[in-house]
Amino acid sequence: MSSSSSTASGPDGLATLSVNALSEPLVARLLDEAGRLRVSSTRTEAGTVLVDAGVAAAGGIEAGVLVARICMGGLGDVAVRSSLESAPIWPTMVDVQTSWPVLSCLGSQYAGWSLSATKEQTGGKKFFSLGSGPARALAVKEPLFAELGYRDRHARGVLVLEVDRLPPQVVIDKVALDCGLAPEDLTIVTTPTHSIAGTVQVVARVVEVALHKTHVLGIDLAEVVEGSGSAPLPPPAPDGIAAMGRTNDAILYGGRVHLTVKTDAAAKALAQQLPASNSRDYGRPFAEIFTSFNYDFYQIDPALFAPAEVWVSSLESGATWHGGRVDARLLHEQWSGPADAS
Amino acid sequence: MSSSSSTASGPDGLATLSVNALSEPLVARLLDEAGRLRVSSTRTEAGTVLVDAGVAAAGGIEAGVLVARICMGGLGDVAVRSSLESAPIWPTMVDVQTSWPVLSCLGSQYAGWSLSATKEQTGGKKFFSLGSGPARALAVKEPLFAELGYRDRHARGVLVLEVDRLPPQVVIDKVALDCGLAPEDLTIVTTPTHSIAGTVQVVARVVEVALHKTHVLGIDLAEVVEGSGSAPLPPPAPDGIAAMGRTNDAILYGGRVHLTVKTDAAAKALAQQLPASNSRDYGRPFAEIFTSFNYDFYQIDPALFAPAEVWVSSLESGATWHGGRVDARLLHEQWSGPADAS
Amino acid sequence: MSSSSSTASGPDGLATLSVNALSEPLVARLLDEAGRLRVSSTRTEAGTVLVDAGVAAAGGIEAGVLVARICMGGLGDVAVRSSLESAPIWPTMVDVQTSWPVLSCLGSQYAGWSLSATKEQTGGKKFFSLGSGPARALAVKEPLFAELGYRDRHARGVLVLEVDRLPPQVVIDKVALDCGLAPEDLTIVTTPTHSIAGTVQVVARVVEVALHKTHVLGIDLAEVVEGSGSAPLPPPAPDGIAAMGRTNDAILYGGRVHLTVKTDAAAKALAQQLPASNSRDYGRPFAEIFTSFNYDFYQIDPALFAPAEVWVSSLESGATWHGGRVDARLLHEQWSGPADAS
Repeated sequence: MSSSSSTASGPDGLATLSVNALSEPLVARLLDEAGRLRVSSTRTEAGTVLVDAGVAAAGGIEAGVLVARICMGGLGDVAVRSSLESAPIWPTMVDVQTSWPVLSCLGSQYAGWSLSATKEQTGGKKFFSLGSGPARALAVKEPLFAELGYRDRHARGVLVLEVDRLPPQVVIDKVALDCGLAPEDLTIVTTPTHSIAGTVQVVARVVEVALHKTHVLGIDLAEVVEGSGSAPLPPPAPDGIAAMGRTNDAILYGGRVHLTVKTDAAAKALAQQLPASNSRDYGRPFAEIFTSFNYDFYQIDPALFAPAEVWVSSLESGATWHGGRVDARLLHEQWSGPADAS
Repeated sequence: MSSSSSTASGPDGLATLSVNALSEPLVARLLDEAGRLRVSSTRTEAGTVLVDAGVAAAGGIEAGVLVARICMGGLGDVAVRSSLESAPIWPTMVDVQTSWPVLSCLGSQYAGWSLSATKEQTGGKKFFSLGSGPARALAVKEPLFAELGYRDRHARGVLVLEVDRLPPQVVIDKVALDCGLAPEDLTIVTTPTHSIAGTVQVVARVVEVALHKTHVLGIDLAEVVEGSGSAPLPPPAPDGIAAMGRTNDAILYGGRVHLTVKTDAAAKALAQQLPASNSRDYGRPFAEIFTSFNYDFYQIDPALFAPAEVWVSSLESGATWHGGRVDARLLHEQWSGPADAS
Repeated sequence: MSSSSSTASGPDGLATLSVNALSEPLVARLLDEAGRLRVSSTRTEAGTVLVDAGVAAAGGIEAGVLVARICMGGLGDVAVRSSLESAPIWPTMVDVQTSWPVLSCLGSQYAGWSLSATKEQTGGKKFFSLGSGPARALAVKEPLFAELGYRDRHARGVLVLEVDRLPPQVVIDKVALDCGLAPEDLTIVTTPTHSIAGTVQVVARVVEVALHKTHVLGIDLAEVVEGSGSAPLPPPAPDGIAAMGRTNDAILYGGRVHLTVKTDAAAKALAQQLPASNSRDYGRPFAEIFTSFNYDFYQIDPALFAPAEVWVSSLESGATWHGGRVDARLLHEQWSGPADAS
């Protein structure tokens, strides 16, 4: 028997998949179906495509789902679905599934690339945004990529910015340069946190948040082989801090993640240490916590950024450990209208 | 930065989308996969395609899902899924999602076009059916279209009839004429209420029923920007009144809808007034209500036609209001077999 | 009106659909996306394609879903989804939907083809595996096919083996010969029970198990027109008996199936007799039962092999009967890690 045409990449073979190549058909769909998705696109003079998915364009849930799938480098399935039970946590939920949790969540989806421009550079307001999505893996500006041992090489790339205006030219130029892309081969998608699409793509980070805390806890990322999770999809909040609080609460109090890892030791440790309830700041709405620290993000306990509930299965023994729990009551109290008696 | 190739339609830009064009690939699939979907198609002498999805052909759940998606003008996602919880409302549920609730539900899916023929015209039995689906927006025979400010223009069209026999030639001619279509450019899909596909496509109207009542309540339809919902999928009932009662009960007592609207005032009003429980006739199975009014449809309180439970989110404040609730007990009592002890 | 181009197969017209043709695009996807799916493929000298989906290759949930859909002959929809409720049976569930329950489950998915080779034949260890999937319907070696009145004829075929090593050449030759296929037109997919993909594809048999017991109970298979179901997806267990126990428990104690049948008599009988709880052996974990019978599979009560809970709808009256219930407690006790307090 001859062994030929094997295309397997091996269990840890991140390097053979290109998150930019895998997300390219999704970017094409975002542009082709722009009308239906209520997004708009413009081209800079140099040819970079800027997609507005919630700044001036209305966007919507379907646009948000597509942006979330792009953000995961084409390696995650994101769906918005109705809860089907008698007493739902929330009527509409985001479900995320990935057979490549580390690569899709940390190698692509994580918002780890700081992009800023001064007033002088923009000729107007200061600009700051965290970049997420596949193009991060072309630029590899973050130490995380060395730890992942992953670097993408592809002739085209896409970056997602969670900010309330389109990026200035100086930032676009920097991204293209750092990614080693010609300007016309770069697409940048912008979704504000206070837009519907932006809310979807942030809540769709429920598994990514778990992976990031796994990393913070010092647990070897090579442990994690499968990941899935869900979180309630609230409407966006109209202003900044409320919007940020809203999407954080969706994950901290409404998120549930199921990871499959290689060893019992990692499974036990994650079930115990991963849930948001391990944090000293757990129990109050995020906006209230943030305000209590005088809007200083870095005073918040990093252990808070985690799903409410985790289930962790181990391939070593086949057992599953469980920790934390979804707190539907807190969400309803936060998210219900003032005169809502239900 | 030059602004070119923008394809956005704007938040309320219904006019740029063609529900007939968007549903065309779905109609092609219905015909191409007819064997697998257990539907049959014939062509009239003039070339109109008639699809039988439950009259003589068996049809089925998958056919019904595709017909429902056609009915929503390609702007809604319809899925039939298993309930996954310990004590489900019902084991099989329909989930509907749309980022174009007004256009897909009222501009296309609503069964608002009365089509009839006399005995003389048919050369046999009288014919009556309500037409639903994309072709309504070509014919624009209903005052609703002026209110929506929507008219579709497309060279081909598809209409769905919920009736127990194929339409007579006189009705086919009228539809083609009113739609401004050559006979060979028209497809008519027929699904009886007592068929499996027919039951799916009626239960898939759970969001449309909410939109229609929103309109009846006099709330501005431009308020509604996102819609989703679910309802239990019972088997069809074999005879007319029972079948009609069955699908109505699925929505009135088992339907749950989540709308996103622009203002708090609309959200509050809808959460309070939209649920079926606001109706004087609420509480009894639909077939019993209908019978008690001597089968006079117009004596039934119009407020009854609504989902059991609604959640309405407002983009103004980001809050969500909630009203009504699913009544699984009534459904089980109605739908369980006589000797079923569970 | 002329009647032409009808492609309907009639309600019971199994013969017009080819499970091997319908699964071919899914097999192509398995090979084309091998890297992303973490499967590997080799070709024998004679050209047969052998897909490793969990032996040496890592495989994963997504690979398992695709193998399960291939196994159902392209006539079933298999999805892995997150549970969305407050207190889930299990965080990750498999959902199976088919409008062709008899053909997809018994004509294709059922593991009914015994394939074995002696030490002499393999030149190494004895080989035994049950073959499942579309190619069974080309070989029609099982009496079941005469009862189904189904035989597939297609120039290419795919077989799935649930075993922990790739098949020896003698078995490959036998399969090709019995299917009437040239070696290069045959694909064999191997998924061990102790792999992730193997666990998915076995748990995805929840509806098939119900159909098989329907057959064992002597109820006419032509009764069953629609089928769907769900079951929890545990991680694989690392060793043989535990792995087999794991997937069986997922169905016997966690499986729920909804069938639609033609008559009330069949619906009532199935709701009563189908659930696993009818078995004398019901109530203990499968591995414990198996061990108590000294690993003699044939001493286990065949009535045990069934979903925990069934709902059966009848097209005759439109009523639904219900029997059995999911036992989440037993599953959690079996599947939880030793120190898991939840």
